[in-house]
Amino acid sequence: MTVLQQGETLDDLQNGLYILQSETGFHFGMDAVLLADYVKIRPAERILDLGCGNGILPLLLTARHADARITGLEIQKESVELARRSIAYNHLEDRISVIEGDIREAVSRFGAASFDVLISNPPYMIASHGKLNPNRQVAMARHEVSCTFGDLAHTAAGLLRDHGRLYLVHRPFRLAEILDTLRSYKLEPKRMRLVHPFIGKEANLVLIEAVHGGNARMTVEPPLVVYEEPGVYTEEVRSIYHA
Amino acid sequence: MTVLQQGETLDDLQNGLYILQSETGFHFGMDAVLLADYVKIRPAERILDLGCGNGILPLLLTARHADARITGLEIQKESVELARRSIAYNHLEDRISVIEGDIREAVSRFGAASFDVLISNPPYMIASHGKLNPNRQVAMARHEVSCTFGDLAHTAAGLLRDHGRLYLVHRPFRLAEILDTLRSYKLEPKRMRLVHPFIGKEANLVLIEAVHGGNARMTVEPPLVVYEEPGVYTEEVRSIYHA
Repeated sequence: MTVLQQGETLDDLQNGLYILQSETGFHFGMDAVLLADYVKIRPAERILDLGCGNGILPLLLTARHADARITGLEIQKESVELARRSIAYNHLEDRISVIEGDIREAVSRFGAASFDVLISNPPYMIASHGKLNPNRQVAMARHEVSCTFGDLAHTAAGLLRDHGRLYLVHRPFRLAEILDTLRSYKLEPKRMRLVHPFIGKEANLVLIEAVHGGNARMTVEPPLVVYEEPGVYTEEVRSIYHA
Repeated sequence: MTVLQQGETLDDLQNGLYILQSETGFHFGMDAVLLADYVKIRPAERILDLGCGNGILPLLLTARHADARITGLEIQKESVELARRSIAYNHLEDRISVIEGDIREAVSRFGAASFDVLISNPPYMIASHGKLNPNRQVAMARHEVSCTFGDLAHTAAGLLRDHGRLYLVHRPFRLAEILDTLRSYKLEPKRMRLVHPFIGKEANLVLIEAVHGGNARMTVEPPLVVYEEPGVYTEEVRSIYHA
């Protein structure tokens, strides 16, 4: 098999796995790494990544959870194809499967209450926030072009079994709206962690665990601080990258 | 005037002011001090403290803002009386007035859109959370006996002018519900700060600024950490106490 096609890179995930990424398309960032660390998985749970892109979250999760099997759903054909080639390169075809399809049609495709755990690194910007990236793969990863946060929450509520869990990473500037939307679909926020680039700086990411049908009581965990000083990760972030 | 009555203490606020507190009743805590620091006031704004208790927030705010004039609304007769005697002791009768009344009737009493700024340190527990304190003053300060968070938000939306601000301190375990309720009354959370007893511990307080009719975009500020080590405040908390 020719691994690398023109305009692609093969990047070392530092955990024994590699990922193919398009040079001009979407590249995974720290948000995916932090979310993979935030997710809690129990044996034999049915796990779906809503909008898996190039497959970064399933790859990180299989490395962290020796028995996990994960399905990824992705609407963009080129991302699906890229993710499948990464999976094949890592010999993970029996543990990760990627399905091409629209999040908004996922309940009819997979069936109601068919998953224990959902994960998602959705686009952070609503369609009207700033300029769309001319690269469609990047635009769809960043902006709610094909699926709003409400669409995502609606689908998640349909796909999760009672007390199933949804794990998300998002931007704090939308936090009130996100918590509000989750609650409106009975996805009760139970655990939340703010990520701050430095201890004295505003949060720029938020990690959330919501429980389908959970009660209204949540925990705000200790802040996750990324840098000790410019260019130097905190011990916690270093340990997350090397887990 | 006899300042101190039986069963009362006169406590030094370390800012030139003193407060009368009932020995067996409600005592102010760090939450009031942090909220007073969080509030932003511009000259000549009309300010109301919803549920002012023994008057701690108006006292702290007058010390911090040389020209501020503040109204306190309080339902408990004994707290109103205590607050008024503290105000007299500090010679602040021309800057703080305390009115006995029910938050749920505040819009008809003060008029719609009659304030620029509202502040509140509401009871943290819903009425069914745990045991009510046998002291009614304490019970009403801790539990939503006379006024739910929804009642408070409903009243706040009625009392605030367009783009007026509500400042709150609350418990993070109710955060999703609080943000949700605020939004349902068009009190858009704009600024939020989590308070952690230690850097590695869960948040135990949250400070919120909501804007009446604001747009849905918020900032999560740097975490406020209380203790450097057991018994030793961080520099920031020391500076808040001595501001």
